[in-house]
Parts: sequence; C-alpha cells; structure tokens
Amino acid sequence: MKKIVIVGLGLIGGSLALALKGFEDFRIIGVARRQATVDYALSHGVGDEATLDTVSALRQADVTILCIDPKDIISFLEQHREDFKPGSLVTDVCGIKSAIMEAAKVLPESVDFIGCHPMAGTEFSGIEHAFGEMFRGSHLILTPRPESREENVALMERMADYMGCQDVVKTTPAEHDAILAYTSQMMHIIAVSVCDDPMLFTCKGFEGSSFRGCTRVAALDVSLWAQLFSLNAPALTSCLDEFIKNLQDYREAIASGDKNKLVEKLTWSSDRKRQMELPGPDLLH
Amino acid sequence: MKKIVIVGLGLIGGSLALALKGFEDFRIIGVARRQATVDYALSHGVGDEATLDTVSALRQADVTILCIDPKDIISFLEQHREDFKPGSLVTDVCGIKSAIMEAAKVLPESVDFIGCHPMAGTEFSGIEHAFGEMFRGSHLILTPRPESREENVALMERMADYMGCQDVVKTTPAEHDAILAYTSQMMHIIAVSVCDDPMLFTCKGFEGSSFRGCTRVAALDVSLWAQLFSLNAPALTSCLDEFIKNLQDYREAIASGDKNKLVEKLTWSSDRKRQMELPGPDLLH
Repeated sequence: MKKIVIVGLGLIGGSLALALKGFEDFRIIGVARRQATVDYALSHGVGDEATLDTVSALRQADVTILCIDPKDIISFLEQHREDFKPGSLVTDVCGIKSAIMEAAKVLPESVDFIGCHPMAGTEFSGIEHAFGEMFRGSHLILTPRPESREENVALMERMADYMGCQDVVKTTPAEHDAILAYTSQMMHIIAVSVCDDPMLFTCKGFEGSSFRGCTRVAALDVSLWAQLFSLNAPALTSCLDEFIKNLQDYREAIASGDKNKLVEKLTWSSDRKRQMELPGPDLLH
Repeated sequence: MKKIVIVGLGLIGGSLALALKGFEDFRIIGVARRQATVDYALSHGVGDEATLDTVSALRQADVTILCIDPKDIISFLEQHREDFKPGSLVTDVCGIKSAIMEAAKVLPESVDFIGCHPMAGTEFSGIEHAFGEMFRGSHLILTPRPESREENVALMERMADYMGCQDVVKTTPAEHDAILAYTSQMMHIIAVSVCDDPMLFTCKGFEGSSFRGCTRVAALDVSLWAQLFSLNAPALTSCLDEFIKNLQDYREAIASGDKNKLVEKLTWSSDRKRQMELPGPDLLH
C-alpha cells in the first residue's frame, strides 16, 4: 500500500488527513510534534495513522505534504533533505510559493517538488477545528517545477478531485504570489485594519453580513500571517498602495458632494464585480 | 382585521411581506409601482394582497412600512402626509436614520413614526430575490421618537421576534448613522475599492472565502447606496480617514521589514477581533 505522509496536523493538515482518507490505495499517515495531537488524530480518525517519528515516516512516504508554517517548511526541507524517499513527491499547502520553491532546491534530484496552495481555511487553528469538507468547492493552485513529472501533477489533480475541489489552477510561483497578495493577504490586512477602529466594540449589535464577511479573517494566526506578509512584502505593499488610492478616490467623491460622480464611480465598480460572476459565500443577513 | 401596508415590494419589502405573513391578526398588503410587481406578489404569495393604489392602502393601514429608497421616503412622507390613518404607526427599513427622522416631522401629530433598520439584505435587488428567512438571526435597529408610543415600540419588537431577528437594538438617529457609516457603508466602499484594482479579472481562480466575503457586496444597488453615502457623508469620510490611516500603518510595518512590530500589531488587532466574539457568516472555503 502506498503512503501519503502529512507533516503537521493543524487546521489544514488535519483537514487534509480527513479529506484524503480512502483516496485510491493510499494510507494516510500524520506526523505531529506533540503527543496530544497524535492522540487526538488517532482517537478522531484524522488519517489512518499518526506518529511523532518524522524521519521514519518520510522514508516510507510516496507523497509528503508539508502542512507547517512557511519558515518551518524552509528549515524542514533543509534539515530533512536526505530523508525523503527517492522517487517520491513532496508538496506543501503554503500561501506563498516563490520562497518555498526556492527552498525546495535543496532536495535531491530524485525527489520531485510541486508547490501547492489549496484556497481554503478558516480563521481558527489546530486539529480540533479540522474538517474533511474544508476543500469542497475551493480552488487548488499548483506551481510545478518545469521538470516536475507529469504523473505527479496528475496525481495531485486526482487528489484535488477526491477532496472536492472546484478546480486545479496551474501557475508560476511569481504569478501566484502577485495575485495572492491581492486576493488573500490584502483581505487579511483589510480585516485587521477595520478592527483597529476605536468604534469596534461599540458597533456590536449594529453589524450585518458585510461587516462579518469583511472582518471574519481578522482573528488570524499571527505567526503564520506575519510570515506570509513578510515573505511577500513587495507585492503586498504595492497592492495596498493601489487599494489606498482607490479608497481615497471614493473618499473624495463622497466628500465633494458631487452625486453624479459618485453614481458614475459606483456604476463602474459594481459592474466590474458583476462581470466576475463570483458569488459570495453567504447571501443571508 | 388589522393591516400592515408595505410600500415598495423590492428585495427588502418583498422579504418583509413574506416574513410577516401570519403575524398576529394582521393582513399584509403590498404596494408596488408596477403591475408586474403586483402580479408577481399575488402569484407568489408575497403578502396577502398587493395593489398599485397607494392612497387607499395607506388609509386602511394600522402600520405602514416604507421599503423604498431614502430620497423616495423623504418625498413620499411629504406627498402622503395627510393620507396616513390617524393613530397609525409609520416605519421604514432605511440604512440612514437622521435624514429620515427629520423628514418624518411633516407627519400629523396623530401619526407615530419609529425609524427602523433591519440589518439584513443581499447584494441582489427586486422582488424575485425576496425570501422570508432574510431577517433570521439579524439585528433590528429602532430609532423611536422621544414621544413614540410604548405600545408601538412593543409591536415592532413582536414583529422582529416573529421574523426571527436575533435582537432589537434601540438607539438615536445620530448614533445609528455614526456606527452604520463604519459597520455598513464603509464595508461597501471597501468592496468596490477592492474591485477597482486592475488585477480583478486576472485573479479569478485564485480567490478564497476572504476575497468573496470582502467583495460580495460590491455588486450593489448604485442609486440606493449613492443616496446612503451622500446622506451620511461626514460620518463616512471620517471613518474612511481612520481606516486609511490604519491601513497605512500596516503598510509601513510590512514595508519596514520589522517583523517584531508586525507581529505586535497583528497580535493587537486579532485579539480585538476575538474579543468581539462575532462569528463570520461562513466558515468554509
């Protein structure tokens, strides 16, 4: 029986271990750093096995999925470069790709590395919040190396399909990072910046779905997101500059009292949103 | 049998007509401007009756709920000031309260007016998107006049309960408008400003729930929101200034490369969000 080893049984790793159970002829082995996590995984059926023994798990792994923080992935690849099984596939789930693909260059030639970013998650962390349905309907982004094996890309596509992903999108690490600065990292900066307003606590009872939708992710994993922001700082600051400029244009249109200009701007922006045909996650209150 | 007249059978008025059906001993009468809307309401059971005849409906109404645009409410109150039944209650559903409460001063003394704002809605408009469950779990805000009758406030509270609202919050028009500039109007300015980014269309396939949650409301009703923004311009621009300042602080923390400062800021903001205990509308992808 072939083996998928998931390194890191937090929110994403735990959810993957649940979502991939029963995938083809693979056995799912979780690797955790704490015994309590191993015990939780075993007693809740998160994957088929769970262990603290990283090296012996890696040596048996046909596929290794690194579900740890970006900086931990970088040091893990360096530390365990000789522990991966020759001919195996290594991948990750990290929201930054250039730095990870660069770090993966330490791997021996016989080990393939395909960058992976499932566009899923919640504002919680830890195995106790993991759920197997997490990836249903979401995009899975792959950044294969030019020399990555086709059969490995195909395997990841079947895994994505099995987990219920909406589609698999292939791109380069640079394009991934430029776009994700906009679609993901900036959304988190917006959420925390909204929560920095002194009115935050007095507004309880006066919030609707637009407020909840915009600020949900503000309760973020600080260490993880500080790494993602830092590793993608140039792209992220450039997106923020564009956003601040666009906000200021609206601010001026509102302050000027020029209603025609405001209507014109709102028509333009809302038409763009409609053209995207991107339904929100929630249509109620 | 007593009568509730709902003026305007759009998304909110239509949803209210559905949500209030069967409430105590009230008959629900919808007033629309177009025959097609009346026909739709009658054939889909949106309320108990529907009519084009505003004046005769108002004369029978024990409760009138104005579900039209802010500027239309202002002119409607002026135009129909003598048509409301003496002793009746008039209310609205509008996202701005000071301008509406001011306009309601034209009503005769025998007609009570209580400002109302159910914190519910979707990014769609029109009766065909109406649904009776819209108000379930949402806040209903009331701005009674100092002289409003207690029995009328109590009636609105029972209506809110019947529609499934989470709670009823009473406040002043000024406080409502200051807070809503932050919790609602600014969320819409954020959403449209994010969509103004040139990257919008290339990002499709790379978006997760944070992007969908933040931008959902960008597909807004332009005429309605232009009015809300204009009528609350001072409060809204002041919120936007605070938000832009907070965004710029994050931008500088990221650009500076000072990771400790970034971690410290993120810890502060995310702790504030957690203290709110305000779950997002959606925890999946």
